[in-house]
Amino acid sequence: MKPTSRPKVLAFDVFGTVVDFYGSIKREAEQLFPGIDGGDFALAWRAGYQPAMQRVRSGELGWTRIDDLHRIILESILPRFNLQHLDEAQKRHLNLVWHRLHSWPDSVEGMHKLRRHFTLCTLSNGNLSLLAEMAKINGLPWDLILSAENFHHYKPDPETYLGVAQVFDVDPAQVMLVAAHEDDLKAASRCGLQTAYIHRPMEFGLDDQGRVRKKVEPELPFTYVARDFNDLAAQMGC
Amino acid sequence: MKPTSRPKVLAFDVFGTVVDFYGSIKREAEQLFPGIDGGDFALAWRAGYQPAMQRVRSGELGWTRIDDLHRIILESILPRFNLQHLDEAQKRHLNLVWHRLHSWPDSVEGMHKLRRHFTLCTLSNGNLSLLAEMAKINGLPWDLILSAENFHHYKPDPETYLGVAQVFDVDPAQVMLVAAHEDDLKAASRCGLQTAYIHRPMEFGLDDQGRVRKKVEPELPFTYVARDFNDLAAQMGC
Repeated sequence: MKPTSRPKVLAFDVFGTVVDFYGSIKREAEQLFPGIDGGDFALAWRAGYQPAMQRVRSGELGWTRIDDLHRIILESILPRFNLQHLDEAQKRHLNLVWHRLHSWPDSVEGMHKLRRHFTLCTLSNGNLSLLAEMAKINGLPWDLILSAENFHHYKPDPETYLGVAQVFDVDPAQVMLVAAHEDDLKAASRCGLQTAYIHRPMEFGLDDQGRVRKKVEPELPFTYVARDFNDLAAQMGC
Repeated sequence: MKPTSRPKVLAFDVFGTVVDFYGSIKREAEQLFPGIDGGDFALAWRAGYQPAMQRVRSGELGWTRIDDLHRIILESILPRFNLQHLDEAQKRHLNLVWHRLHSWPDSVEGMHKLRRHFTLCTLSNGNLSLLAEMAKINGLPWDLILSAENFHHYKPDPETYLGVAQVFDVDPAQVMLVAAHEDDLKAASRCGLQTAYIHRPMEFGLDDQGRVRKKVEPELPFTYVARDFNDLAAQMGC
């Protein structure tokens, strides 16, 4: 499904699409706590992510930033990893690992190519300060950092996708969501956005048998399907 | 008044402080409409700025972005400059001159020095898309673009200054407002922020007698007073 018109704005999902949360948290956890299974720790933390946001979407919690949701989840998983003894400063430092996630090897290079032709922004459930620190550490050349925090709605609520179009004063069809997640792209498509699916097979690492954990069989006819950001840039003529 | 502790976040006013709206609009207006007094045109447009925002602050208008306020003001001044014949596309292009303002000669260099030591963000009444396009054109290395649009309050409402501290999860005293405007800095100081006054003597250009229009006699004991961003960086040990 090729677009009838090129988008003006590329809005990027971040966790898993731009940065490698699994590998980054695995490495940092194993450095901080020798003997821990850092991969299991990363997956356990991430597993609490959708349920925590659902508590906000449902109204059980008022607007709560991801930093605070990550902390709630962290508290709940620490005993499972025998880390309940951490003091406040250690927990606070560990919680901010989400600000320090490393980008995939192609992210910065691909973004620089795309940025010459398009406006690049984030559309992430991560909070603004998290995304700003992550951008600074990794050198991610965003034109604008947008977050669920701007809209007080978490993806996949339509207010987020439509919010990007409103901020840039363009039609939803002039925005393309770039993401490694089918559900995110489907929700964006329902709002009229163009879509680019990025394969990120290592998003959840390898299992005990050395097999890729991520199931990669995207169903929707996306506007683009790309291996990585360099491939997306090439397909878009950048 | 030197600070007891260094700030973590420098929040910059933009119009007049980072970019030269007077010179930029004067030049573009005189190129587009030969014979016009571009300086008078720039000053007339800017003169409508505070009254327009006051209509939002007072509740007469619902939340309205600066792009739209600029357009309302533009419509009101066009007849005075014999420009009422412009068509919609011309008006739209002209209105977006505020996205294309040029930065002062020291802005980018000084920001790069400061950015190695501090988090740099905007705190501007300009809308997000305006600030993003301006940053891209000028190469302004913001860590985060924050706007009245984030808070649905215009400066000098306290929600804006306190909003920066909330976004970065720091105390107000860990934020310093950098601005060429005493009233902006006074309002920030009342909210507990540190303050840096930047002399921008050419903000309103020169009058018919070749004298600087801007009155530069700041009263408040600011945390810093600097000639420009390079001077501020030097004073802050960057």
